Amino acid sequence: MAIRTKEEYRESLKDLHPITYILGEKIENVHEHPLISHMIASVTKTFEMENDPEGSKYLVTRSDLIDEDVSRFLKFYKSPDDLLAKVRMLKFLSHNIGGCYMRCTGMDAINSVGIEVYNCDQKYGTNYWDRLVEFVKMLQKNDYVLFSGVTDVKGDRSKRPSQQADPDMYLHVVDETNDGIVVRGAKIHQTGSLCSHWGIVVPTREMREEDKDYAVCFAFPVDAEGVIHIYGRGTLEARALEGRDLGNVEFSKFAPVIIFQDVFVPWDKVFLYGEYEFAGNMVRNFGNYHRHSHGGCKCGVGDILIGAAATAADYNGLGTDPTRPNYTGLSSASHINNKLAEMLKVTEAIYGCSIAASVESTETPSGIYTVDPVLSNTSKLYEGKELAEVIRLMIEIAGGMVADVPSSKDFENPEIGPLLDKYLKGVEGVSTENRVRIFRLIEKLAFESRDIVSNIHGAGSPETHRMTILRNADIEKKKKLAKKLAGIKEG
Amino acid sequence: MAIRTKEEYRESLKDLHPITYILGEKIENVHEHPLISHMIASVTKTFEMENDPEGSKYLVTRSDLIDEDVSRFLKFYKSPDDLLAKVRMLKFLSHNIGGCYMRCTGMDAINSVGIEVYNCDQKYGTNYWDRLVEFVKMLQKNDYVLFSGVTDVKGDRSKRPSQQADPDMYLHVVDETNDGIVVRGAKIHQTGSLCSHWGIVVPTREMREEDKDYAVCFAFPVDAEGVIHIYGRGTLEARALEGRDLGNVEFSKFAPVIIFQDVFVPWDKVFLYGEYEFAGNMVRNFGNYHRHSHGGCKCGVGDILIGAAATAADYNGLGTDPTRPNYTGLSSASHINNKLAEMLKVTEAIYGCSIAASVESTETPSGIYTVDPVLSNTSKLYEGKELAEVIRLMIEIAGGMVADVPSSKDFENPEIGPLLDKYLKGVEGVSTENRVRIFRLIEKLAFESRDIVSNIHGAGSPETHRMTILRNADIEKKKKLAKKLAGIKEG
Amino acid sequence: MAIRTKEEYRESLKDLHPITYILGEKIENVHEHPLISHMIASVTKTFEMENDPEGSKYLVTRSDLIDEDVSRFLKFYKSPDDLLAKVRMLKFLSHNIGGCYMRCTGMDAINSVGIEVYNCDQKYGTNYWDRLVEFVKMLQKNDYVLFSGVTDVKGDRSKRPSQQADPDMYLHVVDETNDGIVVRGAKIHQTGSLCSHWGIVVPTREMREEDKDYAVCFAFPVDAEGVIHIYGRGTLEARALEGRDLGNVEFSKFAPVIIFQDVFVPWDKVFLYGEYEFAGNMVRNFGNYHRHSHGGCKCGVGDILIGAAATAADYNGLGTDPTRPNYTGLSSASHINNKLAEMLKVTEAIYGCSIAASVESTETPSGIYTVDPVLSNTSKLYEGKELAEVIRLMIEIAGGMVADVPSSKDFENPEIGPLLDKYLKGVEGVSTENRVRIFRLIEKLAFESRDIVSNIHGAGSPETHRMTILRNADIEKKKKLAKKLAGIKEG
Amino acid sequence: MAIRTKEEYRESLKDLHPITYILGEKIENVHEHPLISHMIASVTKTFEMENDPEGSKYLVTRSDLIDEDVSRFLKFYKSPDDLLAKVRMLKFLSHNIGGCYMRCTGMDAINSVGIEVYNCDQKYGTNYWDRLVEFVKMLQKNDYVLFSGVTDVKGDRSKRPSQQADPDMYLHVVDETNDGIVVRGAKIHQTGSLCSHWGIVVPTREMREEDKDYAVCFAFPVDAEGVIHIYGRGTLEARALEGRDLGNVEFSKFAPVIIFQDVFVPWDKVFLYGEYEFAGNMVRNFGNYHRHSHGGCKCGVGDILIGAAATAADYNGLGTDPTRPNYTGLSSASHINNKLAEMLKVTEAIYGCSIAASVESTETPSGIYTVDPVLSNTSKLYEGKELAEVIRLMIEIAGGMVADVPSSKDFENPEIGPLLDKYLKGVEGVSTENRVRIFRLIEKLAFESRDIVSNIHGAGSPETHRMTILRNADIEKKKKLAKKLAGIKEG
Repeated sequence: MAIRTKEEYRESLKDLHPITYILGEKIENVHEHPLISHMIASVTKTFEMENDPEGSKYLVTRSDLIDEDVSRFLKFYKSPDDLLAKVRMLKFLSHNIGGCYMRCTGMDAINSVGIEVYNCDQKYGTNYWDRLVEFVKMLQKNDYVLFSGVTDVKGDRSKRPSQQADPDMYLHVVDETNDGIVVRGAKIHQTGSLCSHWGIVVPTREMREEDKDYAVCFAFPVDAEGVIHIYGRGTLEARALEGRDLGNVEFSKFAPVIIFQDVFVPWDKVFLYGEYEFAGNMVRNFGNYHRHSHGGCKCGVGDILIGAAATAADYNGLGTDPTRPNYTGLSSASHINNKLAEMLKVTEAIYGCSIAASVESTETPSGIYTVDPVLSNTSKLYEGKELAEVIRLMIEIAGGMVADVPSSKDFENPEIGPLLDKYLKGVEGVSTENRVRIFRLIEKLAFESRDIVSNIHGAGSPETHRMTILRNADIEKKKKLAKKLAGIKEG
Repeated sequence: MAIRTKEEYRESLKDLHPITYILGEKIENVHEHPLISHMIASVTKTFEMENDPEGSKYLVTRSDLIDEDVSRFLKFYKSPDDLLAKVRMLKFLSHNIGGCYMRCTGMDAINSVGIEVYNCDQKYGTNYWDRLVEFVKMLQKNDYVLFSGVTDVKGDRSKRPSQQADPDMYLHVVDETNDGIVVRGAKIHQTGSLCSHWGIVVPTREMREEDKDYAVCFAFPVDAEGVIHIYGRGTLEARALEGRDLGNVEFSKFAPVIIFQDVFVPWDKVFLYGEYEFAGNMVRNFGNYHRHSHGGCKCGVGDILIGAAATAADYNGLGTDPTRPNYTGLSSASHINNKLAEMLKVTEAIYGCSIAASVESTETPSGIYTVDPVLSNTSKLYEGKELAEVIRLMIEIAGGMVADVPSSKDFENPEIGPLLDKYLKGVEGVSTENRVRIFRLIEKLAFESRDIVSNIHGAGSPETHRMTILRNADIEKKKKLAKKLAGIKEG
Repeated sequence: MAIRTKEEYRESLKDLHPITYILGEKIENVHEHPLISHMIASVTKTFEMENDPEGSKYLVTRSDLIDEDVSRFLKFYKSPDDLLAKVRMLKFLSHNIGGCYMRCTGMDAINSVGIEVYNCDQKYGTNYWDRLVEFVKMLQKNDYVLFSGVTDVKGDRSKRPSQQADPDMYLHVVDETNDGIVVRGAKIHQTGSLCSHWGIVVPTREMREEDKDYAVCFAFPVDAEGVIHIYGRGTLEARALEGRDLGNVEFSKFAPVIIFQDVFVPWDKVFLYGEYEFAGNMVRNFGNYHRHSHGGCKCGVGDILIGAAATAADYNGLGTDPTRPNYTGLSSASHINNKLAEMLKVTEAIYGCSIAASVESTETPSGIYTVDPVLSNTSKLYEGKELAEVIRLMIEIAGGMVADVPSSKDFENPEIGPLLDKYLKGVEGVSTENRVRIFRLIEKLAFESRDIVSNIHGAGSPETHRMTILRNADIEKKKKLAKKLAGIKEG
Repeated sequence: MAIRTKEEYRESLKDLHPITYILGEKIENVHEHPLISHMIASVTKTFEMENDPEGSKYLVTRSDLIDEDVSRFLKFYKSPDDLLAKVRMLKFLSHNIGGCYMRCTGMDAINSVGIEVYNCDQKYGTNYWDRLVEFVKMLQKNDYVLFSGVTDVKGDRSKRPSQQADPDMYLHVVDETNDGIVVRGAKIHQTGSLCSHWGIVVPTREMREEDKDYAVCFAFPVDAEGVIHIYGRGTLEARALEGRDLGNVEFSKFAPVIIFQDVFVPWDKVFLYGEYEFAGNMVRNFGNYHRHSHGGCKCGVGDILIGAAATAADYNGLGTDPTRPNYTGLSSASHINNKLAEMLKVTEAIYGCSIAASVESTETPSGIYTVDPVLSNTSKLYEGKELAEVIRLMIEIAGGMVADVPSSKDFENPEIGPLLDKYLKGVEGVSTENRVRIFRLIEKLAFESRDIVSNIHGAGSPETHRMTILRNADIEKKKKLAKKLAGIKEG
């Protein structure tokens, strides 16, 4: 069946043996490593939700490719409604996971690649589209997890791929055989690579003729020969290694560097090679889609930020009595409600612009719909800047205990545990343990570096978002409207 | 026919004789007064657009009440698509008028009143809904302009209507006869009252039993006996009085105080009287709809702000050559583009949240759809605060000449006109006259007090928007989600 | 005596006959024109304050040039204390005038010019310093009002002075005689030119060798032959022309364009001519000083914004009872206090950075102290952006009546006056007249275009402030500190 | 001698045996524990600087109490210059340490306590002042490190100390003997307690008569009997425990909870006991002083943020060639410079307001000067909110590698080390190691939870800062000024 259970997902990982290094050591059973297992748990949750009565409304859809129910993570966006459904699915999952579930990059990649390989086939008579469709059908039938490899390491940022002193700073084809191509390079910030079955590489930027060998798109198994995953450090690792004081007790995120040491890719998994003029649009499409995904995801995370802050206020004694009439969940302290309103303002703008980007989507020749780029990038700009203020407001509401709560080991120590239990208590009726738990969650939400940096740099950097907005906003039309109102007639 | 031409609209005004005072004088032909005529021009433009091939796509729709094409300004919102169409119509009109066209308050009022009178009829067996439908059919058949009277003068803000020292500080029923009711009070900020044929009064706040006589909703002709319109001063009046240096050369806005001196209203025009528990929802519905209207309107105005700023940059010599390849309308000065991106970010958030509030609307028992209150109020909050920064950025881009360009009378003076023409010139190829025109438009967009104050206080004040968001955001659900992720189990 | 009375100042104006055009007409007794007289009143107030027991502490100081008490507006900054005293004087005057008093540009100009002419004399053996000192002594002895002419009209902003199609777009020397020089060009935004006795022209930007003729600095009487003042329009002119509904009942501001039609300047009033390398520093010094002046001035205006908002809240019924114990002047509505705190945060940052820029000033070879450029420009950046938010908050607190209060003529009309008096009343104990007055003041503070644009573009544009900060912030030192902490050793 | 060397400081720690728990274990040689040693290093650096030719200019001053050179950390503020010198010392130290050096709370406490005990002695004839002076002399003679214990754990925030269900939620006197008092309670966020010799407890809030036993102020040795220090967890602990990937290679910060288990304090170390009316001012003074300290400290840290961001831009290939003429340290990418300018704007406002709060300080009866509360709290508000944006901008400039750089253990692994060295390289001429170092520093600066939370909640929470500003800003005077300008005369 095309919808897997969570048990089937976990079972399927046993067949995968990606070469992986964590903190300097080569790891064998990587999926069980304490720095990885909470991330596997996030993906597992998505499979649980595909089989859940409520969850399946969000996560399961009909495939017109294999005529079966499939995961929405593996479907082409064939209508504005598909794009709306994506945003709502991601918000729903964030509500249940509180962070990354690592299946969006693959979903956005097959769509962004799809649009351009269709265009390429039209221009050059290539057959990339059919290859891609076959690949997607295979993914759908097996409910595979796919991640995308977009971001190259890039070396000197002021230089193009072919200008770099070391030609490998952008992933490129170094050999070509009858059976396929051989690629070399490295992709960084590879969210979910070790939770996935397959990866799909997308060029990281527009390419010119001289960068031809860098204009390459292909799929690969995560444990293909020559693929090396290296864990990138985040904050809060001591907690994951100890398995305590986690904040989010079940779920987390990671993003390795992947090095492609002359990896062979058979032709049927190659979706672009040399047709450099499509590279730019491919990654721009990806960016627009992925900023749109962030709109649903981070709005959902935003609701957790708000809920955590409001709970901390309750536990500090600054909530309202839930038993009183007209109880609204608000605080008795007006400044706290004022801050909650500011938090909502931002998270709803993030969500609203993603919804609107879906409604104002347009069909491409491939039949895949593209989101409105101005609105999807606007959503991401609010995430990139204002969401940081939402997080700050959460800390402002919660208070200083976000900084330095003693370990659960201290609470378990018979000499000081009872003292801590006594002294760190907040309002009556809430256990000190629960109060500490909410501060730990807030700590996790505020200081997990990979999440916070993703808010800013995920799906491209804010400067890219600004340029995308400017290039798509039709400033020239706006000038004409203004001139007409001013009574300006130009010769 | 149910769609009037602009000539028919202007002709129809001749039959109206509202009692009007402007700057201390009673005015006879008010529609031709220089402080009013530019506002009449805005409304006239909407009639022109109803008959325009492109405009009619936005402004004309089918009425299921009279089975004719009618103005969208007079239609009940019977689907999410009606709400989307409203937002897009308003954006379109703002593009063509650059400011208020004064027909939204009536449109939003019939819908917000409609929802509650239907509910009231269900509860009390009243027949308000039928009265309202008859009224709307009459409006549709004649393509009448309707404005709504919401905001009472309010006296001491810390007191309820029935607590005021002077009982008339909120409009209320002072007498009741076999034929109808008699009302007294005053409504302020009455956008468009003198461009309209009819008004509809809506209670300005929730009411309690003791405020029963204040829970009143009704329609009245703008020149009904006892209705007095008094012009409220704005900035830039010297220009309108002189008919020069206008900025927006055709269109403008005004908002009188209206005093109801014991005005008689026949029963068939009374839509609520005494059923105080519906007053609050009526005005809350109105607020949510009208903030949603602002989303389309002010995003459209935002495009004019952006276009005006970009044009000023061009005329100052800081644009790009439009003849060069890949010309995008952007500036050669990166800081100007950066500012344009910030401007777009805000205006698109305003728009996006209104679009999303339409998509996430819900049906009421009356069959009328209500917008999502969180999203529509979020849109308005961005207008209330961040749009002021958009306007500031427009001035920052345009430069100091926004402050103090000499009058066109100076340009016409033979002694100094040629000197001004010489010295106020910007880039080659643009006449000084056109450069001055764009600065005048910017001045108008930045300093027309009624527009700017409307950004902040129109459709309720920001504090109301914040409270509406907080009350509708389901903070309690968000707390539950956060607690679950933190592993908190409450007894 | 070196300190004039206000009567002497007014009397002295009678001897001045500047050629002036206002709204297309040549004006004879310009100082009494209704669009000018409120500005004369501002300057008059400074003379009143020079003779006031409290005011003189701020405005009067000892001159080491003429060994008499002189106006602080005419003194060289010879110590950090002089700079501190300047900031405090300006805050004090803003408290009493609520806006521009038009004597700062001259004060800042003599100092910025002084530093560079001293340097120039050192390098080239010129005698500009002595000329300047003589000029300043003459000003001091007569307590003359001096304004500075800095901003040229500039034409195409992407071109240097000597590259412009019309060579007159920057003021320059067109002839030289035995007795002096002849200059041509135009200066715009000339705050206070018609309240002054003398002007001093400063180059508007750095100059290169090819711009040599534009590197000119000199003093001139405001009614010198060939000098034409043309009034630039502002908002709210109808009020000034009618002499009612003024908001600030006594004081206002204006800023004409001045055209120099081949004006002759005798050598003893020429302070730079051709030594182009000093032009840039001259105007940069001026900018830094004048941003420092804004720090005192606009913080003082900020206090008026705060006071006006808080008064409006009181009058709306949202204040606290002043007779209750522990009365602090705060509102009973927490959101209003929250907004007042935000307003204070900005105005105090503006003030604080100007105070700090004084403390961290440094002596130049001339003996004149320069302010810290990073701190003075930081102050101005807060004025340029965040002060707009302070103004918006004032409107948010005050409410919609800022937009459209009827005229005092309406209040005087026997038919509607009593009705307006009844209906526009706020809290008990405050007359409607006083309530209207505070809304008028707020309208003036928010919508007087010349003031608002001055916040942004006065003393240079925000982009200039940012560049000045960047160029003076020693980023390189900061990099070194960071590298050391990171353990980076560079070869 | 009254100035210790760093060796003497380290030696002195050997005599201290505070009872300490870290991660559930009782620790013996706490000063060498890997989670504490980098914090000891910070304090050690202050002693190094006291003996450094440049550093001593900032850190060493003359004591009028013992007539010797002493550490400025132990001096009463006897003039505005003392307060200026404090701000500059802290900025200097932050430049060299990049974070907390843990000696400010004690310095601010002796001054804030001093003012009030002097007042108390005047009122009640107590001899607290003499006791305090003796204590300070002892500290000065030994160059002891003093920390202050201000923040109680507080329990239910909506209740006063004496209303809490558990009376120990605020520290209080539980017994009194001939020799002294016995105290119980807990203080949280005790920055530097384990680097110090002595602590001084200050009441955390205003007290009323019923809270009398909580109005207590006293000094105690850090290893007094009954004092328990419990380490509070921060982020990035895995790094400290491993001793690698530290970011700031030498220095860090911590803040334990301290529990007072019936601790005896002899009378000569008791500085307040029962005179409740002085408690509020004591902590308010402390808050104002400590916000003023933050102004110097965090501005210095801000310079490191700016330097780190600019270095990352350089290393990414987005700097400018330092060998080119007119090199300014700025980037070739205008958007980076724009961001640096925004960062500077905030850090300079923080600094400027602290400088100004020094200049505008006032003398108290004790001879100690208090800072201007409006300006010092304004400074802190910018730290509390806008500094978070500065940190975000640093990440935005630096790029995504802040999130997930592999460990130095990976670089040392012979299989993948060379690959990482190859692929994580940036611009030519900069080693990968150095590039990684700057990203690690940025990670530390952005994600060390104790630092970030201290920005917000250190020295009180933003809501306290706002209230302090409001209460000290004389809103009533501002109203009077506004009314006068509006022409309002009140009866």
